[in-house]
Amino acid sequence: MTTTFERATAVRPAGDGVYDVELDAAYSMGGPLHGGYLMATLLRAMLHDAPHPHPVSNNFHFLRVPRVGPAQAHVEWLKQGRTAATARATLVQDGKPVLEALVSAGTLDPVAEPEWMGEPPAVPPIEECVAQPQLTPDGAPAGLAGQVEFRHDPETVGWLTGENRGRPEMRGYVRLREPQDPDPYVLALATDAMPPAVFGIGRLGWAPTVELTWHMRAIPAPGWLKLTVDARMVYDDWFDENVEIWDSAGRLVAQARQMARVGRG
Amino acid sequence: MTTTFERATAVRPAGDGVYDVELDAAYSMGGPLHGGYLMATLLRAMLHDAPHPHPVSNNFHFLRVPRVGPAQAHVEWLKQGRTAATARATLVQDGKPVLEALVSAGTLDPVAEPEWMGEPPAVPPIEECVAQPQLTPDGAPAGLAGQVEFRHDPETVGWLTGENRGRPEMRGYVRLREPQDPDPYVLALATDAMPPAVFGIGRLGWAPTVELTWHMRAIPAPGWLKLTVDARMVYDDWFDENVEIWDSAGRLVAQARQMARVGRG
Repeated sequence: MTTTFERATAVRPAGDGVYDVELDAAYSMGGPLHGGYLMATLLRAMLHDAPHPHPVSNNFHFLRVPRVGPAQAHVEWLKQGRTAATARATLVQDGKPVLEALVSAGTLDPVAEPEWMGEPPAVPPIEECVAQPQLTPDGAPAGLAGQVEFRHDPETVGWLTGENRGRPEMRGYVRLREPQDPDPYVLALATDAMPPAVFGIGRLGWAPTVELTWHMRAIPAPGWLKLTVDARMVYDDWFDENVEIWDSAGRLVAQARQMARVGRG
Repeated sequence: MTTTFERATAVRPAGDGVYDVELDAAYSMGGPLHGGYLMATLLRAMLHDAPHPHPVSNNFHFLRVPRVGPAQAHVEWLKQGRTAATARATLVQDGKPVLEALVSAGTLDPVAEPEWMGEPPAVPPIEECVAQPQLTPDGAPAGLAGQVEFRHDPETVGWLTGENRGRPEMRGYVRLREPQDPDPYVLALATDAMPPAVFGIGRLGWAPTVELTWHMRAIPAPGWLKLTVDARMVYDDWFDENVEIWDSAGRLVAQARQMARVGRG
């Protein structure tokens, strides 16, 4: 069975490193397409003919806001080494670059034990967490929550009811609403799935990502992904957003940091 | 007065977005050129004609090991916006790409107050820290320590005497040995200046960087830079290295994360 997510991120080789894609309304957040969805789609083109399966280091710069409809992914290989292979990838719509990426892929051992692992983050058990509604109070789809199921730490869900808890933090769990196990593309989506950290200090509104870098550290086990998000500094309307993703087996599977602009409204 | 660092990272415009550079033996670490030095040089080419002065988001993938001598920086602008301008930059030697970069530059307010800032890291005062020798016991220059002055937290300096302290952490202070205030290029150097975090768990030897991303958050004050470095996970010989850089005025001025391979020696 092909999932909605797989269909929405599908790529069709058109030769010479070009892949046709169809940006899908399922990942339109009541207007702009979701950044994590765009990253997942471009990544699928990049990995289509990659010599290594795991996107270890992924950088994305968001240049323009694309619309639902056809687009093209252009992939150019810069190095194909034994440990890492590096490509440049560009998502193009109407002849203009909308998303620019640099990706180094490697091959991660599925069964290795970490030589070192820091303390897992403290997040309450999932049954103590708060679901995020799939629909807004007036019945419209609530953005990404139409595709992704959320459970929020009660301590970081104040933004849902307009409370300012005074700390730029989010903690909780995510999974797709359909039967879709986590894979590199779901991880790409998840790195940008939680509400902006600055919602925690009352700065609501669309917080556009300028650049997002994420690292795949291990192959995720099936099940919920546990996420922590925080900002170290909000300065001159720029903020960093640091994300850790842990899988259901208790392993750190991804780390991300993005630079974004504080939302206006 | 021009400093050694400024001369070593100088770029000469050759037209059409190409800049001639001369990779300098001063930043050769007894063999390979220092990665932070290469980043600083490529960044200087990128910012030469940039519409914004501050490199907010910087991604670098290390493709090949260059040698001392001539090289060319190629800069291609992807977007020039009011808030951010994004360029691709490639350092080329002997016709081959050795370092690939994506950079989004912005304009940071020199006098803004942070709207939010997390807790500064706990590092002992500089006078309680340990200097790193400029020469090895047999009188040879000790790599980067020939150009950069280090003060290490006594808790994280065990590697200098062959001790394994059991945690992949480094803390301390850096500045150039010559009169050179911190600027975006010194920050680029500093993000990769400390010994690899895995030295703290006894994994010595050259730990090659595959990818490094750093963010400039504020304009640094003159004086020492305070650094903390740690790894969250060492897995399948990959490790992340997370760096925070604070200036002498107590402000977070840069954040970095790199993915590197554990050293073998």
